[in-house]
Amino acid sequence: MSPPEAIPNHGARRRFLQQGLALAGAAATAAKATPIGAALPTHQRRPGNADLPYGQPAPFEAAVVRTESRDAGFSGWRTPLQHQRGTITPNGLHFAVHHNGIPDIDPTRHCLMLHGLVEQPLRLDWERLQRYPMVSRVHFLECAGNSAANALSPFAMDLPLGHLAGEVSCAEWTGIPLSILIDEAGPKSSAQWVIAEGADAGSHARSLPLKALRQHGLLALFQNGERLRSSQGYPMRLFIPGWEGNVNVKWLHRLEFSDTPAHTKDESGLYTQVLADGRIQRFALTMEVKSLITRPSGQQTLPDPQGHFEIEGLAWSGRGRIARAEISLDGGQRWADAQLHGPVLDRAFTRFTLPWQWRGQRALLMSRATDEHGHIQPARSTWKARYAAHSFNHYNAIQAWAVGRDGRVQNTYA
Amino acid sequence: MSPPEAIPNHGARRRFLQQGLALAGAAATAAKATPIGAALPTHQRRPGNADLPYGQPAPFEAAVVRTESRDAGFSGWRTPLQHQRGTITPNGLHFAVHHNGIPDIDPTRHCLMLHGLVEQPLRLDWERLQRYPMVSRVHFLECAGNSAANALSPFAMDLPLGHLAGEVSCAEWTGIPLSILIDEAGPKSSAQWVIAEGADAGSHARSLPLKALRQHGLLALFQNGERLRSSQGYPMRLFIPGWEGNVNVKWLHRLEFSDTPAHTKDESGLYTQVLADGRIQRFALTMEVKSLITRPSGQQTLPDPQGHFEIEGLAWSGRGRIARAEISLDGGQRWADAQLHGPVLDRAFTRFTLPWQWRGQRALLMSRATDEHGHIQPARSTWKARYAAHSFNHYNAIQAWAVGRDGRVQNTYA
Repeated sequence: MSPPEAIPNHGARRRFLQQGLALAGAAATAAKATPIGAALPTHQRRPGNADLPYGQPAPFEAAVVRTESRDAGFSGWRTPLQHQRGTITPNGLHFAVHHNGIPDIDPTRHCLMLHGLVEQPLRLDWERLQRYPMVSRVHFLECAGNSAANALSPFAMDLPLGHLAGEVSCAEWTGIPLSILIDEAGPKSSAQWVIAEGADAGSHARSLPLKALRQHGLLALFQNGERLRSSQGYPMRLFIPGWEGNVNVKWLHRLEFSDTPAHTKDESGLYTQVLADGRIQRFALTMEVKSLITRPSGQQTLPDPQGHFEIEGLAWSGRGRIARAEISLDGGQRWADAQLHGPVLDRAFTRFTLPWQWRGQRALLMSRATDEHGHIQPARSTWKARYAAHSFNHYNAIQAWAVGRDGRVQNTYA
Repeated sequence: MSPPEAIPNHGARRRFLQQGLALAGAAATAAKATPIGAALPTHQRRPGNADLPYGQPAPFEAAVVRTESRDAGFSGWRTPLQHQRGTITPNGLHFAVHHNGIPDIDPTRHCLMLHGLVEQPLRLDWERLQRYPMVSRVHFLECAGNSAANALSPFAMDLPLGHLAGEVSCAEWTGIPLSILIDEAGPKSSAQWVIAEGADAGSHARSLPLKALRQHGLLALFQNGERLRSSQGYPMRLFIPGWEGNVNVKWLHRLEFSDTPAHTKDESGLYTQVLADGRIQRFALTMEVKSLITRPSGQQTLPDPQGHFEIEGLAWSGRGRIARAEISLDGGQRWADAQLHGPVLDRAFTRFTLPWQWRGQRALLMSRATDEHGHIQPARSTWKARYAAHSFNHYNAIQAWAVGRDGRVQNTYA
């Protein structure tokens, strides 16, 4: 865009640099750069581009986006976990599931109400909520139905990790401990449940045990330092660390205190779990311990069999901290302890790695996480034996990746 | 956009809700919502909007952006810290200073070279760099010149915090420990310095002590889980936790090992510091302990004098963890310990809060941080006495906010 400009005059250093490069060129083993001594690339010959008030990803990363799945009126947007390095999911790539689309809410006209079996009903607008103490906590969030395809399908699907299991992300959530608001409202002794309702077109609602809500719940207002995105419930959402995604009600506008659950459509239908013997498991809200190898993962190809490769993954548990992550290269015959990268936080993504010398052989990669309470990921067959054939929520079985002789990685069952 | 649809049929619950609301309306003290019993808002009467593959901030938050300052060819983009809640700065709001604009680099044609006084010169492209072990660390990054206006100006400026001191942010950086690459190159015994150069139009370059680079340096490739933004050095940058922003060379394309510093234009000019007695301080790279009250801060107005208000701020030190943050309401006469919110990480933003009952009186708010090594923020007069009148880099003096009887908050000197 800008006209070319004179190259800055540091000829002596430039000449020395080129001598250095000649040596470097002879020594480098994986060089794919511009030939040594060629003209400087365009971007060093003219002033660079301008920045933006709200920054955007690098243009060359345009393919790193969330992918959508639509099912029965739902719209699910999955984090491309195969590209995530580190434990924080950027807000633009945080997964979201919308039951009724994204409501366009004017925050100055939005209120949160606490009512029902309380001594002092409350109606709180943004300005008033600003006065309350807030805490910041890094936590994962996972859809109950994450990895549903792997729970259900009887065949290996050749898909990237994000498509298979990308309805989980991790962020720093900032908001008001619900205990403060609950105590201000003063639940009556008969109140045992809280019905949380969102201000979306379908009035998504869930009944939650008051005691747990008071102990762990957050009225989340910020995500990774900025106000919630609309797709995350702007201007406010419920957040209960470790619990399945949909109970973290987005666009939250009321908490109704009750002596019984409301048996809303959302909890009596989709978000129940049918066990193998036909019994129904309800209000099983905690997401269990789980891990995924993110690299290498589905549709990736290992580089030429030479030198060091670092296997990398993410582990989390809705019940606490990750205590251990193991990796198997042979489909679960032998397991090696992966290194956990700190800080290992409560109910948050924990990164783990294991060095590997791949020499072109077939391999069957698996990871298995254990949390601080001793919960451990089950094999797929164990998980399948526990639930009815059509159940898919809360799938946390060990994920297997088949590596071919050509280095190609595919989802598989083992 | 979408046509209106029928209101979902749950009339019984809706009627009960409206009774609840009537109570709530009578009780609430700061209610500004739609009158009770009015029709449901539009966003509850029709299906919501669609989401995007790469999410964006809520439309109502369009004003929360970085602000630009231009000076002598520089372009600086400041984080609106007055809006940040929590310790992570979202990538779209991370501060940036560009000396020569943003180069448009094709990552498949970009290489990092290690050369000069080394046994084995290296040229590393993206594919090869992928093989190396990576670590993830949450760290602040601050421009040497952050808060320059407060260092220089003899008068109070009525500006928001981001304009005054927004060249500091905090993110999770993921990359390769430089020690691995340096050991592979094998510095000769005469190598004491590394000259790091960026591939921007001005070839921004800094000389850095090899020992420290080997101990703390990172080749950063990811920020908050995704690849670096172009404005942060895509596809790779140097990152040395705690050191002034500009030595974390963006668009890094070479590390030249040398027995002396190169005395580049960037280090012999702008980024030196003139002391009060006329001596020059060079290679003073560490950002000192600092804190800012983010709320309330410049141009904000305290709400009506009633009830609880939470003073909130951020503290950091280039030398380690924050050990203490104190707040004064009377211009430094008396100090109270603020609560530090964990996890308190090494060379990272630490959030602190203090409850306050503001009753409409004038106040002079200050915060003062101490790090784990006992370094403490100086008063402005102490800092000014140490440096020449025109010095402004590494300004870490205590920030004061004057609160008027009307609740308005202004930058001031005290």
